[in-house]
Amino acid sequence: MASEKEASRGLEWQVTVPGGSSVKLESDSVPTAAGWRMHRLKSALTSKVFDFASTVRKIAADDPRKVVHCMKVGLALALVSVFYYTRPLYDGVGGAAMWAVMTVVVVFEFTVGGSLYKGLNRATATLSAGSVAFGIHWLAIKSGRTADHIILGASVFLLSSAATFSKFIPTIKARFDYGVTIFILTFNLVAVSSYRVEKLLALAQWRFCTITIGFCICLTVCVVICPVWAGEELHRLVMRNMEKLADSLEESVAEYLEEEGGVDCNQKLGQKSQGYKCVLNSKSSEDSLANLARWEPSHGCFSFQHPWRRYLEVGAAMRQCAYCIESLDSCINSENQPPDSVKKHLAKVYAKVTTESSKVLKELASSFRSMRKPSSIDYLVEDMKNTADELQNALGSLPQEATSLIVETLPLITAASLLIEVSVRVEGVVHAVKEITALPCFKPTNGEELKAQNKAPSTVA
Amino acid sequence: MASEKEASRGLEWQVTVPGGSSVKLESDSVPTAAGWRMHRLKSALTSKVFDFASTVRKIAADDPRKVVHCMKVGLALALVSVFYYTRPLYDGVGGAAMWAVMTVVVVFEFTVGGSLYKGLNRATATLSAGSVAFGIHWLAIKSGRTADHIILGASVFLLSSAATFSKFIPTIKARFDYGVTIFILTFNLVAVSSYRVEKLLALAQWRFCTITIGFCICLTVCVVICPVWAGEELHRLVMRNMEKLADSLEESVAEYLEEEGGVDCNQKLGQKSQGYKCVLNSKSSEDSLANLARWEPSHGCFSFQHPWRRYLEVGAAMRQCAYCIESLDSCINSENQPPDSVKKHLAKVYAKVTTESSKVLKELASSFRSMRKPSSIDYLVEDMKNTADELQNALGSLPQEATSLIVETLPLITAASLLIEVSVRVEGVVHAVKEITALPCFKPTNGEELKAQNKAPSTVA
Repeated sequence: MASEKEASRGLEWQVTVPGGSSVKLESDSVPTAAGWRMHRLKSALTSKVFDFASTVRKIAADDPRKVVHCMKVGLALALVSVFYYTRPLYDGVGGAAMWAVMTVVVVFEFTVGGSLYKGLNRATATLSAGSVAFGIHWLAIKSGRTADHIILGASVFLLSSAATFSKFIPTIKARFDYGVTIFILTFNLVAVSSYRVEKLLALAQWRFCTITIGFCICLTVCVVICPVWAGEELHRLVMRNMEKLADSLEESVAEYLEEEGGVDCNQKLGQKSQGYKCVLNSKSSEDSLANLARWEPSHGCFSFQHPWRRYLEVGAAMRQCAYCIESLDSCINSENQPPDSVKKHLAKVYAKVTTESSKVLKELASSFRSMRKPSSIDYLVEDMKNTADELQNALGSLPQEATSLIVETLPLITAASLLIEVSVRVEGVVHAVKEITALPCFKPTNGEELKAQNKAPSTVA
Repeated sequence: MASEKEASRGLEWQVTVPGGSSVKLESDSVPTAAGWRMHRLKSALTSKVFDFASTVRKIAADDPRKVVHCMKVGLALALVSVFYYTRPLYDGVGGAAMWAVMTVVVVFEFTVGGSLYKGLNRATATLSAGSVAFGIHWLAIKSGRTADHIILGASVFLLSSAATFSKFIPTIKARFDYGVTIFILTFNLVAVSSYRVEKLLALAQWRFCTITIGFCICLTVCVVICPVWAGEELHRLVMRNMEKLADSLEESVAEYLEEEGGVDCNQKLGQKSQGYKCVLNSKSSEDSLANLARWEPSHGCFSFQHPWRRYLEVGAAMRQCAYCIESLDSCINSENQPPDSVKKHLAKVYAKVTTESSKVLKELASSFRSMRKPSSIDYLVEDMKNTADELQNALGSLPQEATSLIVETLPLITAASLLIEVSVRVEGVVHAVKEITALPCFKPTNGEELKAQNKAPSTVA
């Protein structure tokens, strides 16, 4: 059998390895097997390439600003390169011009806030570390040939350790992480250089100039061509999350109560009803956007001192809602289904609570979208509370059948109870949002204007 | 009145500003007011310093490895500095030695995985970008004085844009984010340098050597002195989260059912019962640790190919539990309290379900701690399922009083229903964990050995 196989495959190489066992190597001169393998490899490669291309196309289509960002980076680098290439300032990889290229590469971020954060951190850290290192360098030179090694070694060790430790302090980590890294870097570079003080000063000046040129080119391109503001991104993220919560609340219950829609309709609903999952996982995005937004100057509707921290409170309140909706979702998808009579008894008021809760969330979202105070929010909250009370009463007057079949009605009762809890937590969101919409940048509504202004904040600006 | 005040304050300066209004400047010769202000400033400063010191002490006490890490960074930098300072290789900030210092500063991370990720990314990116840039540089020189500017500018623009875009692709972002940045940086530095090809080659070689020296010093210090492995951190994080879930499940229900413990006891319980909140927010830590762990070589119980992805599945399953416990927690803290008779009817079986669920989680945690297969897990899961069924039956046979007072008993019924759901989700955790404990690195248990080995994975190794 084995020899037959061997024969059919044609020529094979046999190699005896030092251990004594023999290893067989197939030659490449087997057209059928090799051809088939080549074909398989080719098709696998083709499908990989196609997958990759479709991923790229999807990313670009979902957010064209990403493509613009890449072209902005390319442009900034081409500018800084041409600037230095066309004049004799540049003497290679070690020259001062490399700091300009490096600054653009490292500082250019997707958002203006990100670029400002990195650029300002870099500039401040370079300046302060340079001064400290200069002082220590001077001290080391003054103290003679033996002591200077000790002074330099000890200062490098101590300052680097202390600076590294500072990164573990949460507030420093959030605001100055990059700055601390650059501080350590610059300090070490300057402290250890064997230059004389005068040359060092000239070098430091030169380096700082180059970094400033790089930063200016970078910031100009970042702000002038389609700027992406971290603050606006945070505002939009929170707004979209409100809409997603409202949708998923509405749709998941609609799915449960009206199961006549057919498969197509349910599938469409299914996607929307999972929106709350985005809310569950958006904490880290919100945190980082809020950290970057604080570096941004006044833009559009948002002032320099816009209270971005408050958005994190809104985000936290929305996640509270989302946790509850998650549990609600699992009740709705439970195997135990209540008798139809019980379901009908609750269906109407149940749907009313979800509608009212999602109306409140949508009103908040629309207020965020139009940068107007949510004028009717108090009425909507009142309505939501009333329907929640109605639901509680309806639960109190369940038909006898329901209370005797408690196991079957358990998911429905739990869902109703969770829905009441959701409405309480939506109030929490309203409370958190009110502290933002009370700011003067949110205009008071007057009916007609509202419709005209119902656009994204960037267009209002 | 005003003049009296002025007189009592002593000398004041009055300045007329261009607008015509006069501004009063208080002189520094007012001992009482100024002294008081100084005192307030001093006490504010003192309290700030004390706060800062206590924060630092707390961070250091919570995880002494952070202090060790800082000293490791200092040591690595002192080593690399002394290495270059004591020999004539180094000719200042622009010299090749700066790449060694830079490599240590940028590559040295808290975990071995982090340092390896950055170091390998840096080395690979430098090599590949250098080669590409070298090719383009050569092409530009060959094509004459006018064309070379166009070729260089276009290649800088195109390659930088494409590389920046690749960072938006999730898999590349997770594994090669830093590498792509270094690629762009190196490519630009080399492509734009005005050196001749021979000198460029020598420089590239020199730079690569220096980076390698920096990386080796960095990695040696990182691995030899108290190494922190990202994989082990992930393993511990997941294990601690299991324990926290178990505790918060047990304690929150204990708090609810036995309200005799007094304030002190409740406060102590309160802290433990909030442990699930850590689980809710640990997704980003888990993701980043899993990304770094894949770079680590075999260490302790963990092989190079240890399936770190599976830990993310366990984390996701635990978060599912935590969502449910969060809703459960709000039911328990509801204002509506059921009649005592109903509470007593359910209390025993209710407590049993929580005990059994938390036993399952603790068994999983202890299996993770001892790196042993959880031998009794199937029995424990069976027990948990049985008690959950018991709870469901107890709900079915609620006394008449309960079903007629549905509004009052609603929180209790909801809590019971959520508790049943929690037990289902704990099964999900068991399922996810089993795929990890089935690995050969988890030893089969035999009774006596278990006790001896009941230690952290690092000590087992």
